[in-house]
Amino acid sequence: MKRFFVLMSCICSTVLLFAQQKATWIWYPGDFEVWLSNDMQNRRTERGTFFPPFWKMDSHYVLVEFHKEFDLPAAEEIQIHAEGKYNVKINGKMLAGMPSRVKLDKGKQKINIKVYNQAQVPALYVQGKNVYTDKTWLATFEDKEWIDETGKASDQSGTTYVHAGYWNFNEAAQAPSEFRLPTRPQEAVQQQAQGKGTLIDFGKNTFGFLTLHQLKGRGKLHIYYGESREEALATQTCETLDILDVQLQNANDTTLDLSKAFRFVYIEPDGQVQFEKVSMQYEYLPVPDRGTFKSSDEELNKIWEVAKYTMELTSREFYIDGIKRDRWIWSGDAYQSYAMNYYLGFDAETVKRTILALRGKEPTVSHINTIMDYTFYWFLSIYDYYQYTGDKEFIAAIYPRMRSLMQFCLDRRNADGLMQGLAGDWVFIDWAEGLSKQGEVSFEQLLLCRSLETMALCADLLRLPDDKHTYAAEASALKKKLFDYYWNTKQGAFAHSRIDGKRTENITRYTNMFAIFFDYLSAEQQQSVKDNVLLNDNIQKIVTPYMRYYELEAMCALGEKDYVMKEMKNYWGGMLKLGATTFWEEYNPSKHGADHYAMYGREFGKSLCHSWGASPIYLLGKYYLGVKPTKAGYEQYEIEPYLASLSWMEGKVPTPEGEIELYVSKSKIKVSSPVGQGTLKIKSTKKPRVNRGEIRQVDKNSYTLELEKGVNYEVEYAGV
Amino acid sequence: MKRFFVLMSCICSTVLLFAQQKATWIWYPGDFEVWLSNDMQNRRTERGTFFPPFWKMDSHYVLVEFHKEFDLPAAEEIQIHAEGKYNVKINGKMLAGMPSRVKLDKGKQKINIKVYNQAQVPALYVQGKNVYTDKTWLATFEDKEWIDETGKASDQSGTTYVHAGYWNFNEAAQAPSEFRLPTRPQEAVQQQAQGKGTLIDFGKNTFGFLTLHQLKGRGKLHIYYGESREEALATQTCETLDILDVQLQNANDTTLDLSKAFRFVYIEPDGQVQFEKVSMQYEYLPVPDRGTFKSSDEELNKIWEVAKYTMELTSREFYIDGIKRDRWIWSGDAYQSYAMNYYLGFDAETVKRTILALRGKEPTVSHINTIMDYTFYWFLSIYDYYQYTGDKEFIAAIYPRMRSLMQFCLDRRNADGLMQGLAGDWVFIDWAEGLSKQGEVSFEQLLLCRSLETMALCADLLRLPDDKHTYAAEASALKKKLFDYYWNTKQGAFAHSRIDGKRTENITRYTNMFAIFFDYLSAEQQQSVKDNVLLNDNIQKIVTPYMRYYELEAMCALGEKDYVMKEMKNYWGGMLKLGATTFWEEYNPSKHGADHYAMYGREFGKSLCHSWGASPIYLLGKYYLGVKPTKAGYEQYEIEPYLASLSWMEGKVPTPEGEIELYVSKSKIKVSSPVGQGTLKIKSTKKPRVNRGEIRQVDKNSYTLELEKGVNYEVEYAGV
Repeated sequence: MKRFFVLMSCICSTVLLFAQQKATWIWYPGDFEVWLSNDMQNRRTERGTFFPPFWKMDSHYVLVEFHKEFDLPAAEEIQIHAEGKYNVKINGKMLAGMPSRVKLDKGKQKINIKVYNQAQVPALYVQGKNVYTDKTWLATFEDKEWIDETGKASDQSGTTYVHAGYWNFNEAAQAPSEFRLPTRPQEAVQQQAQGKGTLIDFGKNTFGFLTLHQLKGRGKLHIYYGESREEALATQTCETLDILDVQLQNANDTTLDLSKAFRFVYIEPDGQVQFEKVSMQYEYLPVPDRGTFKSSDEELNKIWEVAKYTMELTSREFYIDGIKRDRWIWSGDAYQSYAMNYYLGFDAETVKRTILALRGKEPTVSHINTIMDYTFYWFLSIYDYYQYTGDKEFIAAIYPRMRSLMQFCLDRRNADGLMQGLAGDWVFIDWAEGLSKQGEVSFEQLLLCRSLETMALCADLLRLPDDKHTYAAEASALKKKLFDYYWNTKQGAFAHSRIDGKRTENITRYTNMFAIFFDYLSAEQQQSVKDNVLLNDNIQKIVTPYMRYYELEAMCALGEKDYVMKEMKNYWGGMLKLGATTFWEEYNPSKHGADHYAMYGREFGKSLCHSWGASPIYLLGKYYLGVKPTKAGYEQYEIEPYLASLSWMEGKVPTPEGEIELYVSKSKIKVSSPVGQGTLKIKSTKKPRVNRGEIRQVDKNSYTLELEKGVNYEVEYAGV
Repeated sequence: MKRFFVLMSCICSTVLLFAQQKATWIWYPGDFEVWLSNDMQNRRTERGTFFPPFWKMDSHYVLVEFHKEFDLPAAEEIQIHAEGKYNVKINGKMLAGMPSRVKLDKGKQKINIKVYNQAQVPALYVQGKNVYTDKTWLATFEDKEWIDETGKASDQSGTTYVHAGYWNFNEAAQAPSEFRLPTRPQEAVQQQAQGKGTLIDFGKNTFGFLTLHQLKGRGKLHIYYGESREEALATQTCETLDILDVQLQNANDTTLDLSKAFRFVYIEPDGQVQFEKVSMQYEYLPVPDRGTFKSSDEELNKIWEVAKYTMELTSREFYIDGIKRDRWIWSGDAYQSYAMNYYLGFDAETVKRTILALRGKEPTVSHINTIMDYTFYWFLSIYDYYQYTGDKEFIAAIYPRMRSLMQFCLDRRNADGLMQGLAGDWVFIDWAEGLSKQGEVSFEQLLLCRSLETMALCADLLRLPDDKHTYAAEASALKKKLFDYYWNTKQGAFAHSRIDGKRTENITRYTNMFAIFFDYLSAEQQQSVKDNVLLNDNIQKIVTPYMRYYELEAMCALGEKDYVMKEMKNYWGGMLKLGATTFWEEYNPSKHGADHYAMYGREFGKSLCHSWGASPIYLLGKYYLGVKPTKAGYEQYEIEPYLASLSWMEGKVPTPEGEIELYVSKSKIKVSSPVGQGTLKIKSTKKPRVNRGEIRQVDKNSYTLELEKGVNYEVEYAGV
C-alpha cells in the first residue's frame, strides 16, 4: 500500500508541474553536470582523508549568454532569477542594472541575458506567461559581438549556439547550486556495548549521514564505519572513519556533514563524551518504482530485490560504482547501471547526467577515467540510450562531443591502425589475476569497432551522411582486421592480443563473449566460442560481477538460459547465503569468512555495494521477462519470455510510455503494453490460443503474436 | 624627497622578504591569472549595467597536485595552508585528515599535496626550514595513478608535470583569492552646488572607490561619473553611473563597492538624502618608480609625466586598455603597455600575468580577444619580454601554449597559405574610417610572419631544433609571399590587401610602417615607403595614439627623430592644451570642444585615459634617451642618445639589475650603468673626450664608447 501511495503522489506532482509550472532553470549544456560531478566525486574519503579522483576534472563556462525570440500575443511581465551577475537585452537594447522584473510589449521580442559566475554554474530562470526559460533557449560561451569605429556591430558571427541544458529545477527557489539529494530518517536495528565503545547495526548496508542523539561532553568521538561487522570493529583497517571533536555542554542532536556507506558503525569515545542513540539520515535519489519482477522462486525474488536495493544505493547525483569507495563515476560501471535502469526506474535524466559528466569538456587529453575501454563503453551507452528512450534530442546535443572524443581515439592508433596503451592510457578490461595488458589487446579493438558503428548509427540519425560514411568505413575496416589479426582458427576463438605484431596464443573470455552479443560471429564461430571458451574451464574464470554480466549475457544470446539461471542462482544466491544485503564488487565462492571483504591488498578494500553487482535486474528483464526494444523508444519491441526453472513469473518493464506488464506460467501468458508495436514470441508444443489478435506459426514450436498497445492479451499455450 | 623615501622603503621590504621569507603561495601556472582576470574583466559596467567581455573566458583546474622531493639535513616541521580541500602524502604514504602541521624526518622526503577547489584557484603554501613552496615545485591537473587488482600502482605514467605558478604572496595569510589592489584616500579639489545636485572635481582623471561622508537619510542617490565635466553633467548620456539606495537614520561614511574612473562626479539626491563631502579611495598597482625623463623642454616633460600617470592608471591587476571602459585586457593594447613598462616600472610580473591571462587555456577556439592581429601581438610580446628581461624560465613555461596557438593560426590559413577573416575572426588593425577588412589583408600576413619568426627564436632558445626549423621555414615562405603578392612596384609600397586572389590598389600605412621597424625592407624600399606612404598626405591619416605609436616608431627607425619630436609635441601637446590630465584613446586635432569626447556613436564613448595614449614614455626612452637591449636582459645594450630640439635631457632606464642613468646636453654626456656591456653611440662634429674607456671612430661624426658596468662616464663632445 505504501508503494502505491508513493507512486500516486509522484504522478500527481508531475501533473501539477506541467500544468502550473513551465519555466525551468537552464545552463550551458553539460556545465551543471560537470560542476555537480566535481562536487560529488570529491566527497570520497579514505580513513578520514580526502581522496579525490586522479583524472582531469573539467569546469563550467564562467560567462554564458542565453537567448530566445518570442512573438507575444499581449504585453506581459517576466521575473528574472540568475545564479551570478547578469545583464538583460530586449531587442538589442540593454536594460539598466540587474532587473528582476521586466515588462515586455506585445509582438516580437528578442531576449538576451548574460550571466557570469566563477564559483558556480551561471544559470538562469525566467518566469512569465509566454516567456519562460526551458530547453528551447539557446546558449553560448562567446558571442563575438564586435563593433566597428562607428559602434556598428559585426554582421558576420562565428558564434556557435546550442540548446540550453536543464534538469528538473522548475521553481525559482530551486537554484541549481543549492541542489542536494533528499534524505529521510532511518533508525538502527541494534545498538550494543562493545569493548570500549558502542556497536550499532542498521540491519542492512545503507548510505547517509549519521545522527548522534543527545550528544554531550568534551573530547573526541572515533566513528568507524563498516559494510561488515568485522570492518566496523577493525579500527586500524576499516576503510572510512570520522573523528568528531565534541565540545558540548548541553546535549544536542548532531548530524555529520559527510555521508558515508555502512551497515555497522562502531563508536569509541576519547574523553568525556556521551550520546543516547544513533540514527541516520538516509540519502537517496528519488526514482519512481517502475520495473518489477516476481516469480515462484523465492531465492530469485530475493536476488532481484537485493539487486534493486544495490541499484538504489548506487544511483545518486550520478551512477556511481560503489557507496563505500570510490563514490566516483566510472564509465564501465555506469554503462551497466544504465542498462539495469532501463529495466527498473527508466530514469533517463540520470543516464544523461552521467553521460555528460563522464565526457566532460574539451580539450580531450585522456581517455574517460583514463581507461581506454571506458571511453568505448561511453560511445556504446549513447546508442543504447537512444534505443531505449527514443530521445534524439540528446543524441543531437552530445554528438559534437562524441565526434571529438572519437577523433582523440583515432589519432591514437598505431601504424597498423590498432589501439594499444600509450603513456597515460589505462587498459583495464577486468580485475583478473595476471591479465595481460601488453601490446594490441583484441578486446580494445573490438570495443573501438563497436564504437565506430555507434558513431555511424548516430550520424545517420542526425542526417550527417559524410560522417556516417566515414565511421562506417572505419568500422568495417577494423572489423576485418579483428578477424585477420586475432581469430585463431585452430583454437576456434579470438586471441587475447598481439605483441610486436604477432598474435599471442593467449585466449581469454572477454573478446569472445562480447563478439557473441555484438553479433560479429557466424553460427559456426559462435558454437566454437561457446565450446572452446565459455564452457571451457581451462580458460581463466571471471570473478567480478562486472564481467559476469557480459558472460551471462553472451550465454543468454546463445540460448543457454537454463545454464545462466543456474549460474545466477549460484553466484548471486551465493552472496545472499553469506548474508549480503547488497551485491558486491567481486565474489569468489572459494574464499571464506572475512576474506571475502579483502581487495586491492587491503583487509576491507572490497566494496560490498557495487552497482555492477546488480545485473540480475537486467538479465531477468531482458532475457527472462524477455522484453527489449527493436526500434528506438519502444516504437517496436519484442517479448520473448523464458520461464526456465520457474513455474511462474510476473513483472513490469518500463518504457517511455508506461510499463509493459507480463505474467508467464507454463500454460499462460498475460501481457499488456502502453507503447508501440510488440511481437510476443512463444515457444509452445501446441498452437497457442489467444483472446485477441492472431497467433502465427514461425517454426516448429515457435509462434508469434503481434501486440497492439492498450490491449490485454491472454495466451494459453504449452511451455516447451 | 618623498619619491626617494618611497623607493627606499620599497628596497628595504624586498630585502626583508628574501632574508626571512622564502615560501610563497603556488598554483597551477596561469590559473590564478585566468581566475583573477575573469574577476577583473567582469567589473565593467555601462550606465550601471554589468557589461562583460564577449570572448570565451577560461577556468582554473579544480583539482591540482603539487609535489617536490627533498633531502633534509635534519628533521623539521612544516606548516601547510591551502585554498581548498587537500590531502598530503609523504613518501607515498597518505597522512590522516587535512594536517596543518607535519613532522618530516631527516633524509629523502617526497611531498605530494592535492588541493581541490571549484570556486577559487587551488593554491598551496607550505612553510618549513628547508621545505617550503616556491616555483621549483611541480604541478599537474591529472596524476593518472591507477592500480592493478593487487593495489599496485601503475609504473607507466602519462602525466605531464609543469613548474608551479606563483607571484608575490609570500605570507601564509595572503591567500591568493583574497588579493585586492591597495588603495589610499584621496580628496576632491572642489565641491560645488550644481542644479539639483553637487558637482565634485578631483582635479585630474582618477580611479577608485567613491566615499560619501556623513551620508544619511532615505531615498536614492544618483551618481554620475565623468572623465570630463560635460560627461558628469550629462545625466542621460554619461558612460558610468551608480544609483545608491540610502536607508540611513544615522550619518555614516559609505564607500562604494565598485571602482570607477572619473575626474568629475555629479550627485543628485532623490528623496531626503544628505552628505557632507565626497572623497575617494584611489586604487593602484604598487610599482616602484624606476624610469624617469626630464629635459629643458617643459612641454615634453609634461607629456612624459602625463603619459606616466596614464600608465599608472591603466596598470592594474593586469594591463588594461582604459579605466572608464573597457577595463579589459586587450592584447594589442597590452603589447604597447609592456613596451612602455620596460622604460618605466620594469614590472616583469604584470607583463607575465597579462600574457598568461590573454592566452587563457585550451581548447583554443578563437583568436585572442577574437582579433586576428591581437593573436599575433601576443606572440611578439613574448620575445620582447625575453629581450628586455632575459627571463628564459617564462619562455619555457609559456612555450607549449605558444605552440598550440600557432597551430590554431596555421590551421586557419587558406589555400594560398594566407590568413583572412573566417567566421568569428575580427580583423581589427585600427579604428579608422572605412578601413577595409576584406580578403587577405597584408598587415595580418606581416604579423603572422613576425610571429613565426618569434616561434623560431623561442624554439631555438629552448633548444628545440625541429620546431625552430619548422617555424623558420614557414616564416621565410610567408615573407616571400608578402613581397610576391603585396609589393606594388609602381607605387613603391605594400598594398593593403588581396581580394579574390587579386592585389588591390589600396595603400595604407599599417603594413608599410611595420615593415620598416621589422627591418623587412631594403634601403631603397624604405626610402620609397617613407616618401610614398609615411610622408604622403594622400594616404589615409592615422588618428589613434595606438597606431601613432608605430608610425612614429617607424619614423624614428628611419632616423627622422626631429620630425617625430615635432609630431609628438603637436599630438600629445595638443591633448595637453585641451586640458588632458591623462592621454586619450583617440585625438583628432580638427575636432572642437566636447566633440572630442564622442566615439563609437556615443556622446562620451571615448576613453580619456587609455594605455595606448602613453607611448611617449617608450619613444623617449628608446629613441631619445636611446637605450635598448641588444642581447637578452641587457647582457648587451646600446645607448644612442638623440637630443633633438632640447638643450639637455636626463633620465633613467630600468634594467633587470638597476637603472641606466643618463644626462645629455649638446656638449656633455654622462652615463652610468649597473648591467651588462653597453655601447654608447655618439654623433659629434669633433672627436669626443671621455674620463674612462676609449672612444672609437666609426664614421665621419660617428663614434662609439664601450661601457663597463658600475663606471661613471663623462663624455665631452660637440653635438651634431
